[in-house]
Amino acid sequence: MRLFNKVAIIGTGLIGGSMALAIKKKCLAHQIIGVSRHKNTLIWGKKSRVIDKGSQDLSIIADADLVVLATPVNTILKLADIILKFIRKDSIVTDVGSTKCEIVSKLSKIFPNYVGSHPLAGSEKRGLVNASTDIFKNSLCILTPAKNTNPKALKKIKNLWNALGAKVVILSPDTHDRILSFVSHLPHVIAFSLIDIVPDKYLKFGATGLKDTTRIALSDSRLWVDILLSNRGNMLESIEHFENNLSRIKSAINKRDERTLIKILKRAKGKREILG
Amino acid sequence: MRLFNKVAIIGTGLIGGSMALAIKKKCLAHQIIGVSRHKNTLIWGKKSRVIDKGSQDLSIIADADLVVLATPVNTILKLADIILKFIRKDSIVTDVGSTKCEIVSKLSKIFPNYVGSHPLAGSEKRGLVNASTDIFKNSLCILTPAKNTNPKALKKIKNLWNALGAKVVILSPDTHDRILSFVSHLPHVIAFSLIDIVPDKYLKFGATGLKDTTRIALSDSRLWVDILLSNRGNMLESIEHFENNLSRIKSAINKRDERTLIKILKRAKGKREILG
Repeated sequence: MRLFNKVAIIGTGLIGGSMALAIKKKCLAHQIIGVSRHKNTLIWGKKSRVIDKGSQDLSIIADADLVVLATPVNTILKLADIILKFIRKDSIVTDVGSTKCEIVSKLSKIFPNYVGSHPLAGSEKRGLVNASTDIFKNSLCILTPAKNTNPKALKKIKNLWNALGAKVVILSPDTHDRILSFVSHLPHVIAFSLIDIVPDKYLKFGATGLKDTTRIALSDSRLWVDILLSNRGNMLESIEHFENNLSRIKSAINKRDERTLIKILKRAKGKREILG
Repeated sequence: MRLFNKVAIIGTGLIGGSMALAIKKKCLAHQIIGVSRHKNTLIWGKKSRVIDKGSQDLSIIADADLVVLATPVNTILKLADIILKFIRKDSIVTDVGSTKCEIVSKLSKIFPNYVGSHPLAGSEKRGLVNASTDIFKNSLCILTPAKNTNPKALKKIKNLWNALGAKVVILSPDTHDRILSFVSHLPHVIAFSLIDIVPDKYLKFGATGLKDTTRIALSDSRLWVDILLSNRGNMLESIEHFENNLSRIKSAINKRDERTLIKILKRAKGKREILG
């Protein structure tokens, strides 16, 4: 089922590369163009037929009917101004950034057919080498239309994500950023903060508990600084929520208050069970 | 290679049950006795030949030459006084509790051949049904001798863990409890605290990051309240270390201090890479 003629993916990393692979596999576009800062990524992308054409030069996106911005949040914001001069007026533009308020606010003013996306897929791994057609299968993809979003463009982007195997949920950018601060951005902050204070000489005693709890601290530092600063208000709030709860646990340990501890630990276990 | 004649395991849960299975598989004992509060566990244990004999009555341990206490920390402390009257004077006694100061301090006074063990194995799962001979394979087991520990008993317990596939490390109970507060107990506190503050209606947006970070919040509440209170001093300290680091990250987000954030996130990633 062809949805687009020419898809340009700017940033052929884990998510961009996986989109390229999946779009190709499912024949959703006639041609896939990749843009990357890294020449070797483009060479490898072409050799392995992930992309049909690649360039470090953004002008290659000129006649694409879908442009996907799949770079870190700050780069998405910067690229918007730059690609404006290359892009066809009727092109649909989407991005896969992990925060949406800043991005949607800016891009929906610049591009008449812009729709914000956030596929809840991927991992701490990076790069085209880790790309896979399967990462969107059974995942959620959040779309965050603005007031002026073209309903036809929204429909097309929804069809795209459905075709890639994702279930689509529509949220406002505000709601998206608040939810993600709790379910993704805060866990990252906590994982970074936790592994950072484990003394080096203790690391060899770390078993699966510590490993799982801090796996996402392997994530790319630059990418995550962008996300945390782009979601600054919500982050300050969610961190404070967490701090208050941790402080309650600490105080209960201090007072040897078994009843409060059991209550919190049981409630936590019950919530984690819901998560599956 | 037979190391013991009759091994009595008090508490045939995940760790006790896995020990029984592995001891049997490797023919390390002539007979394995299981003690459990739960009649069904004993029936199932005998039917599936995990144990040779089982009882809810502690007097069954009378002529065992190795007694393993594999219950939650507080129960180990309570059982010590009770089993004293049943036990042979030359029996070797060990436990698998996750904290060692309190336990070693008490048990090394009561039993002439006591050696504290802590196998860094297991998971958030519980019970004999999840027991497996493989959980000790390539794991670490920490032994925590006291000043008066009988070197022969220590040697025998070391041989046992080695035979079960674990690498043995010898630490003082103090050092053990401090290290574990960072690499295991603090991660549990954080996982409990984190999942507890995620609003219920946001849970469906939790992907692998949140799931992995909070997996250990599925652990048994009673077991963990015991551990946290038994390691109270170290817990208060490790939580404070974590709080201070989280506060630094929050402050950097607040001030939009990219340089500090990048520095902390990169350092965290580097540490996590060491963990493998």
